Amino acid sequence: MTTPTPADPQAAEVRAWLEGLQRRITDAVAAVEAEAGGAARFVVDPWAKAPGEPLQGDGVTRILEGGAVFERAGCGFSHVRGARLPPSATQHRPELAGAPFEAMGVSLVFHPRSPYVPTVHMNVRMIAALPAGRAAVRWFGGGMDLTPYYGFEEDAVHFHTVCRDVLAPFGEGLYPRFKDWCDEYFHLKHRDEQRGVGGIFFDDFSELGQAGSLAMTQSVGDAFLRAYLPIVQRRRHQAWGEREREFQLYRRGRYVEFNLVWDRGTHFGLQSGGRTESILLSMPPLAAWAYRRPVEEGSPEAELTRRFLVRRAWV
Amino acid sequence: MTTPTPADPQAAEVRAWLEGLQRRITDAVAAVEAEAGGAARFVVDPWAKAPGEPLQGDGVTRILEGGAVFERAGCGFSHVRGARLPPSATQHRPELAGAPFEAMGVSLVFHPRSPYVPTVHMNVRMIAALPAGRAAVRWFGGGMDLTPYYGFEEDAVHFHTVCRDVLAPFGEGLYPRFKDWCDEYFHLKHRDEQRGVGGIFFDDFSELGQAGSLAMTQSVGDAFLRAYLPIVQRRRHQAWGEREREFQLYRRGRYVEFNLVWDRGTHFGLQSGGRTESILLSMPPLAAWAYRRPVEEGSPEAELTRRFLVRRAWV
Repeated sequence: MTTPTPADPQAAEVRAWLEGLQRRITDAVAAVEAEAGGAARFVVDPWAKAPGEPLQGDGVTRILEGGAVFERAGCGFSHVRGARLPPSATQHRPELAGAPFEAMGVSLVFHPRSPYVPTVHMNVRMIAALPAGRAAVRWFGGGMDLTPYYGFEEDAVHFHTVCRDVLAPFGEGLYPRFKDWCDEYFHLKHRDEQRGVGGIFFDDFSELGQAGSLAMTQSVGDAFLRAYLPIVQRRRHQAWGEREREFQLYRRGRYVEFNLVWDRGTHFGLQSGGRTESILLSMPPLAAWAYRRPVEEGSPEAELTRRFLVRRAWV
Repeated sequence: MTTPTPADPQAAEVRAWLEGLQRRITDAVAAVEAEAGGAARFVVDPWAKAPGEPLQGDGVTRILEGGAVFERAGCGFSHVRGARLPPSATQHRPELAGAPFEAMGVSLVFHPRSPYVPTVHMNVRMIAALPAGRAAVRWFGGGMDLTPYYGFEEDAVHFHTVCRDVLAPFGEGLYPRFKDWCDEYFHLKHRDEQRGVGGIFFDDFSELGQAGSLAMTQSVGDAFLRAYLPIVQRRRHQAWGEREREFQLYRRGRYVEFNLVWDRGTHFGLQSGGRTESILLSMPPLAAWAYRRPVEEGSPEAELTRRFLVRRAWV
């Protein structure tokens, strides 16, 4: 497999950073697994689009399944190029309509085994329009959000504190905006319920200039491990049983519902011929459905919905 | 809860038939459960739309969970009325645009516990436009299709034979047309794979006149038990182990993918404020995902994809 030559030197730098980020994150997860005595290892699966496909490019999937701490932890890097930006990408940039483009990013979802350890999602991406004879125009997207099965205030506060602090140097208003955007995006309309306790989400972002917007995006990616790992370490020893497991599987069903019904990347990707197995890295290893599952008032399971899966100021 | 008065006597008859069909089918499933010594019972959950919601109407969910033969068997009846037909329903009937309407139907998905017993789906529905001062205009839809986890030719042949025979009195060309329509509809484009071995599917159907089209639809509904139950009885005693169970859970993931990504009723229903728990009766009780799950060549698991999940003439 050949690595496609990025269209300009800055893209090469971004690619190198993304590949490094993916490696650092999966190495850290592997270290947690080793610490827990797990035997599962990350599978590293490089792939490349076949010549002639509408999108060209390559990527690397890293996934650990059946671990002691992580039941399924998928982290994908991809870098694709296309001849023409899709119309949805140039609604607000008519001057770039139909320009060649490249898109690259890292996306991950980790599904822990313990119901006390929350599921997490993180994504950072860069899209560059490459209009003929003109400089590349870049914009950025990404964020991270946390989905607990049993709610702990201190976990939500920690996660949001890292999100807030990482954005602070780039502008005071960013965290509240990206926090609201996240709440807005990760909302299951058909359940009128938040996917989790949120985090930050941004899309189509270039307002700090290309260098500034990239720096902000990189800071978000680099902050992921310190936002998430302390929560894993704090919760993974907490004992759980069949009751907690059953509730976790049931709640994972909501994760599936969100991703397949509402997540634009997933839904659009599957409908438009994306790489299915990469897109579905986000699926849980096991998920359950039950009709109008009863939840006892005042129980931790009821508290999750009442106090955590709502829009709420965490910091 | 009050039963809404159907707009005309024929609708009342159709409603009575649908309610009876639902009862006959769930009674038959309950009898299979009793025969197998299972302790699970159908839950009967009548519901009604709250006044002021855009759609008015009511329904009854019947669902058995955790049975000995059926791990989740949901069968819903619903009857809704709206003030204005949605544009999608009147594309081919401009003269009815915006007319009041009613829609009623029975829809079921049964997920057996044994990996050797196939999952099944059946649906029959009637939509009636009720233009002011004019006669009601009705059209029909429905069908049934079978999704095995381990393929048996005789099961597919039996299911398709019943489908063919039930349509034969209504016209020679119907079975081949509805069979192709089913293959077309239950196709997972993102996997390039059929959901199962197919069956029949029809929509927007009125070409036999109102009485003839209703009679055909009723025959399809009434044929369901003889299409499916013999397969259940033939397979349910076959011993299975962890390997077959694991494969069943993995394949059920595809069922989830189809329903949430491609099924128009499900996807549109969830996005447009339908009753979530009724729509998701079709979800399996438990489903699994795994990255590029290996399948040994020549194994029964590989044969499923190669010989059964393809478009094929069964009778």
